[in-house]
Amino acid sequence: MTHVPAPGPVLGVDIGGTKVLAVELGPEAGVVAATHVPMPGRDASEREVEDALTAAVTRLAAGREVAAVGVAAAGLVDAERERLRFAAHLPWRDAPVRRRLADRWGTSVVLDNDANCAAYAESAAGAARGAGSALMITLGTGIGGAILLDGALVRGANGMAGEFGHVQVVPDGLPCECGLRGCWEQYCSGRALERVMRVAVGSHLDGPEISARARAGDHVARGAFDAIGTWLGVGIAGLASSFDPALVVVGGGVSAGGDLLLEPARAALADSLQAADRRTVPPVVPAAFGAEAGALGAALLAASGRRAGPVA
Amino acid sequence: MTHVPAPGPVLGVDIGGTKVLAVELGPEAGVVAATHVPMPGRDASEREVEDALTAAVTRLAAGREVAAVGVAAAGLVDAERERLRFAAHLPWRDAPVRRRLADRWGTSVVLDNDANCAAYAESAAGAARGAGSALMITLGTGIGGAILLDGALVRGANGMAGEFGHVQVVPDGLPCECGLRGCWEQYCSGRALERVMRVAVGSHLDGPEISARARAGDHVARGAFDAIGTWLGVGIAGLASSFDPALVVVGGGVSAGGDLLLEPARAALADSLQAADRRTVPPVVPAAFGAEAGALGAALLAASGRRAGPVA
Repeated sequence: MTHVPAPGPVLGVDIGGTKVLAVELGPEAGVVAATHVPMPGRDASEREVEDALTAAVTRLAAGREVAAVGVAAAGLVDAERERLRFAAHLPWRDAPVRRRLADRWGTSVVLDNDANCAAYAESAAGAARGAGSALMITLGTGIGGAILLDGALVRGANGMAGEFGHVQVVPDGLPCECGLRGCWEQYCSGRALERVMRVAVGSHLDGPEISARARAGDHVARGAFDAIGTWLGVGIAGLASSFDPALVVVGGGVSAGGDLLLEPARAALADSLQAADRRTVPPVVPAAFGAEAGALGAALLAASGRRAGPVA
Repeated sequence: MTHVPAPGPVLGVDIGGTKVLAVELGPEAGVVAATHVPMPGRDASEREVEDALTAAVTRLAAGREVAAVGVAAAGLVDAERERLRFAAHLPWRDAPVRRRLADRWGTSVVLDNDANCAAYAESAAGAARGAGSALMITLGTGIGGAILLDGALVRGANGMAGEFGHVQVVPDGLPCECGLRGCWEQYCSGRALERVMRVAVGSHLDGPEISARARAGDHVARGAFDAIGTWLGVGIAGLASSFDPALVVVGGGVSAGGDLLLEPARAALADSLQAADRRTVPPVVPAAFGAEAGALGAALLAASGRRAGPVA
């Protein structure tokens, strides 16, 4: 299939919990412009969320014809990348989001899971550039993930590959929002970090507060990062036994903790990986892109021309 | 690279704990002839094991020129498939086995891990034929495994992808021969089956004896298969969250237990997989090939012409 790109900018849109972020892709796989609009409230309709996306895209396009738009969503995108099957914080339920937005905007649209988009950005222009294989782990409220092989995303039979957060790590462990028990993200995530800290000090602190305390030398806060980081390394060891990736990239809000998180993770990985002395243990590195990773990756996927959507 | 195959039969050799099995590949991706020779004892030298392989190949060739030989080994094969880095029950330590055998036999030789070979056989002509993606899990003394994507083996950065047996499933769990604790194969393998039974009845029974008792309706033996099968399903759920395979193929000696093993595995998988109601849960099916899977897969890999070794 040949794909002749339409003229005009390529945009990427990330649908977050509180805002819609839109970016414009530059010539060097970077962001040259960005804008955001607030997300409507929790009970918003599909139409209201689509209006918010449209507002962000329209503002960034500023009257220009747009070549393509990539859309990153925190939810289950089907294997064909046509429908959003389910998203805990978004109104769509098995809705044909890609076609609906393409029809409304009159341009080529690519839809993908936000962790896949972030991983694609890291692979194309970030921390996983040139790696033959890599795992992306995004630590936010929960755990998102993606698998890269030869620079391409491994999507899985249901389009759901990379859902590392719901691997059971403790039999009969902590209950998870997904309905199961002992899921990895109950032990290794922003929410887990806050829980460990709350139990230790008896009051609630959010991630940035815990991070600030740890950097200031607070032993309790450092201990909380140690606990989360150790679980990160144990979980990576299991994934490394299974996939044997060349590299592991850690992104998401919690990764702002940097080596407070990654040093205990690397130590636990080396201690928990079978035959660590007979293999190259994969480096665990921070993501190159922060809050813009999803939108940038969506734009890069839209620009890759691998998938030509309908162009009006 | 074009590859003009030499005339003559393609053979596959599987190096087992007690014998070397050699098979000849037929026109329909099946076995048309087989032979085996005993393995030398535990303290055998590299040369003695290579002599045993040579005896098996020579007997099966019966004076004909051989086009190619595939060699399956239960051990860590490097990413280039040149060297056997380590094998618990074989004398080679980081030895250039592929080239050594190719030079000795004067033909093209392909070397691969035995679980990879078995998975390739299932993909090319067995239970995983036509599956876009599949996981192979071989339950023997421990757990072997392999990942298939679009009919090809995912090998990993160290050639060690698919080492599912050493994923930690119980924190501070049972000690494993690998030096770690709580590895999956301590809860789900032939050895685990025997351990559960030994604890329950106070004496040692081997796998076939436990299988026979279970088939005869013995509740203790059925309970042991239930326990192993449930751990099989829990572990598959973690792998399915990560990879999202279209299919899971279970082989190895323990899989002779059939539905005694697979029914509890399927039930535990459905109970332990996140969003099981919003996805297609991968079927868990028995391998099509039994004891010959490794040798057949090695022959098929040798015949695939993807890797042309030196031909004398």
